[in-house]
Amino acid sequence: MDNAVWRDITQIRSQAPMVMNITNYVVMNTTANALLAIGASPVMAHAIDEVEHMVGLADALVINIGTLSAPWVEAMFAAGRRARQLGVPIVLDPVGCGATPYRTDTACRLVEQVRPTVIRGNASEIKALQGTAATTRGVDSRHSSDEAQADALALADRAGCVVAVSGAVDLIVSATRLARVANGHALMTRVTGMGCTSTALLAAFLAVDTDAFDAATHAAVTMGVAGEVAAARARGPGSFQPEFLDSLHALDDATLGRLTRLTLLPR
Amino acid sequence: MDNAVWRDITQIRSQAPMVMNITNYVVMNTTANALLAIGASPVMAHAIDEVEHMVGLADALVINIGTLSAPWVEAMFAAGRRARQLGVPIVLDPVGCGATPYRTDTACRLVEQVRPTVIRGNASEIKALQGTAATTRGVDSRHSSDEAQADALALADRAGCVVAVSGAVDLIVSATRLARVANGHALMTRVTGMGCTSTALLAAFLAVDTDAFDAATHAAVTMGVAGEVAAARARGPGSFQPEFLDSLHALDDATLGRLTRLTLLPR
Amino acid sequence: MDNAVWRDITQIRSQAPMVMNITNYVVMNTTANALLAIGASPVMAHAIDEVEHMVGLADALVINIGTLSAPWVEAMFAAGRRARQLGVPIVLDPVGCGATPYRTDTACRLVEQVRPTVIRGNASEIKALQGTAATTRGVDSRHSSDEAQADALALADRAGCVVAVSGAVDLIVSATRLARVANGHALMTRVTGMGCTSTALLAAFLAVDTDAFDAATHAAVTMGVAGEVAAARARGPGSFQPEFLDSLHALDDATLGRLTRLTLLPR
Repeated sequence: MDNAVWRDITQIRSQAPMVMNITNYVVMNTTANALLAIGASPVMAHAIDEVEHMVGLADALVINIGTLSAPWVEAMFAAGRRARQLGVPIVLDPVGCGATPYRTDTACRLVEQVRPTVIRGNASEIKALQGTAATTRGVDSRHSSDEAQADALALADRAGCVVAVSGAVDLIVSATRLARVANGHALMTRVTGMGCTSTALLAAFLAVDTDAFDAATHAAVTMGVAGEVAAARARGPGSFQPEFLDSLHALDDATLGRLTRLTLLPR
Repeated sequence: MDNAVWRDITQIRSQAPMVMNITNYVVMNTTANALLAIGASPVMAHAIDEVEHMVGLADALVINIGTLSAPWVEAMFAAGRRARQLGVPIVLDPVGCGATPYRTDTACRLVEQVRPTVIRGNASEIKALQGTAATTRGVDSRHSSDEAQADALALADRAGCVVAVSGAVDLIVSATRLARVANGHALMTRVTGMGCTSTALLAAFLAVDTDAFDAATHAAVTMGVAGEVAAARARGPGSFQPEFLDSLHALDDATLGRLTRLTLLPR
Repeated sequence: MDNAVWRDITQIRSQAPMVMNITNYVVMNTTANALLAIGASPVMAHAIDEVEHMVGLADALVINIGTLSAPWVEAMFAAGRRARQLGVPIVLDPVGCGATPYRTDTACRLVEQVRPTVIRGNASEIKALQGTAATTRGVDSRHSSDEAQADALALADRAGCVVAVSGAVDLIVSATRLARVANGHALMTRVTGMGCTSTALLAAFLAVDTDAFDAATHAAVTMGVAGEVAAARARGPGSFQPEFLDSLHALDDATLGRLTRLTLLPR
């Protein structure tokens, strides 16, 4: 399986897929740099005047509602629908779903109308999207990914997509499969945009791997392994960030083979 | 007093207060990371559709006008008023006040209508807010904090709030108290968003310390001490930034005790 | 010529020119920090309510369409026209020109109506602006700067401005002159916003050097030399970024003299 992760990474590096991002202000720089570090070609665009055209050039689309507002939401729907028409894979990151009705409603409508290929969120967001969470307190999760497993499975079935739940252990589920990725490091929760970066990398994997479950699993492994390598070199959340990009950029087959903690389970 | 700073920091780390930010595009990532490094839980949200709801989940609110425009200003007033109703403490950062009438007018109206708990700015901004400055030239100060002392005192009295003036020496004033914090490092003026970071940290302190003067003073000490530790390790303004976050994250009682240069003075 | 670069840098450091930026969300933090590192004073402002006023305080204006939308485009025209009236030099960065009609049309209209002092882009963007490129795929160039030389010359003549084409070798052309700058490092293509940073630095040079061709050439040398120094110290695209800012901040006459690879050619 680690060989499959590596195979996708070499594909990303050789093909430099264009990943279009309609994402939040906080992480735009971070996720663009992560996409460049893994070998993809990021574009950020959000104007209703161009998103449908830009999707036509994209190999994958990220929709991230982290700092949503009306004109951006309109562009998310337009870009998402166009991506569906063209067969461009879509990752939805329902940031802060459950914190406000505006976020929950927008995320739910995106799931129904855009029909993303993969939904990636933390446990609280996935529970809120499935309608079983109490109000979340902001953008940080109050639940472990295990607590969201039933909701992730139900959401995957209902929405007909892959669902990835980030946490100390990542959970990836599809209609027929389930994986747990036990990579990553606690320091990653002290850096903003790590979840959003995971989503952006997932889009790069979707651009080169037609199996959405594999793409989501490989992205989670890549994120976690790069994070562990970076955390081992960092002195805190500040130095972690350049180390993480260096680590993503330098990731190789041997490191993946040595550190990957992936378990495939029956659903 | 350093023990009181440390007490607040341990409170922030254990409570992880949610700090809601309506702030500028330039610093969103920087201030989110600083809040995470000190132990708080940052949220950035600005849509009129959700700010009032999000304030209901917040332990403190930052209003920063650094890249203001009409829809953001509308959200600042809505969120600010709701925070007042709910008793959520508010820090106003009047970035660039004095540079354009739009900034000066917006900042003055926010002071009057939102009634922030603390106003934190550089000397030129505080003077402009009090109506005594000539036009400032941009977002950098042309005055020392000492030159703004009379205006800071008048503003604190008029607005019924704490006023913090950043500079080589920080000045914190309330209706009855005055403090000078001589911490910090010149390199901090060569990094964008250090003032905004100070404001964001101040909000985290306000979330755990009901005395706004103490919270503002402790935040200034924390900012300055973390900056000194980082500057001693940095080779320039680039390496300063990860060092600063590492330093904030690792800050301890002993370092605070050794480096704090705080003077409490009669008003 | 390296002495002339150094002379401009010392002018920037002593005068701290105010560079106003209407730029994209992805790079605002990056370019503000680069401007601070070289010694300039950056301001980011985009509201139609204040851009004309803010231009009146500026020593140079950056217009960068990287994440354009209708209200920002309106502000770009208002600020640009005001800058022309006041004689404030303007750099246009047509990010992604050629990728969507919206970007191409906006960039072309800005060239015609705002009449920038310098246009700086990658080869694909310059070709698209001159109408000879096939659709570009995003924001990364598919052409070398040499392939864009004829278009750069034609554009310089048609628009009556200096044109700078970034690439492995940078090309700078005016109505009468042509320079090639062979500085820089491949790692710079794995970091987002390096082109935008080049544009921002160019504005700082324009603020202190009335010869736009010289300013553009000196900025390209500065960018490339700082990049080489940083790349020699970096372990990847993550550590490159703090190294780059440190390098810009510490740049000296001797380093410029040793590394500059500038060739002035007949047109």
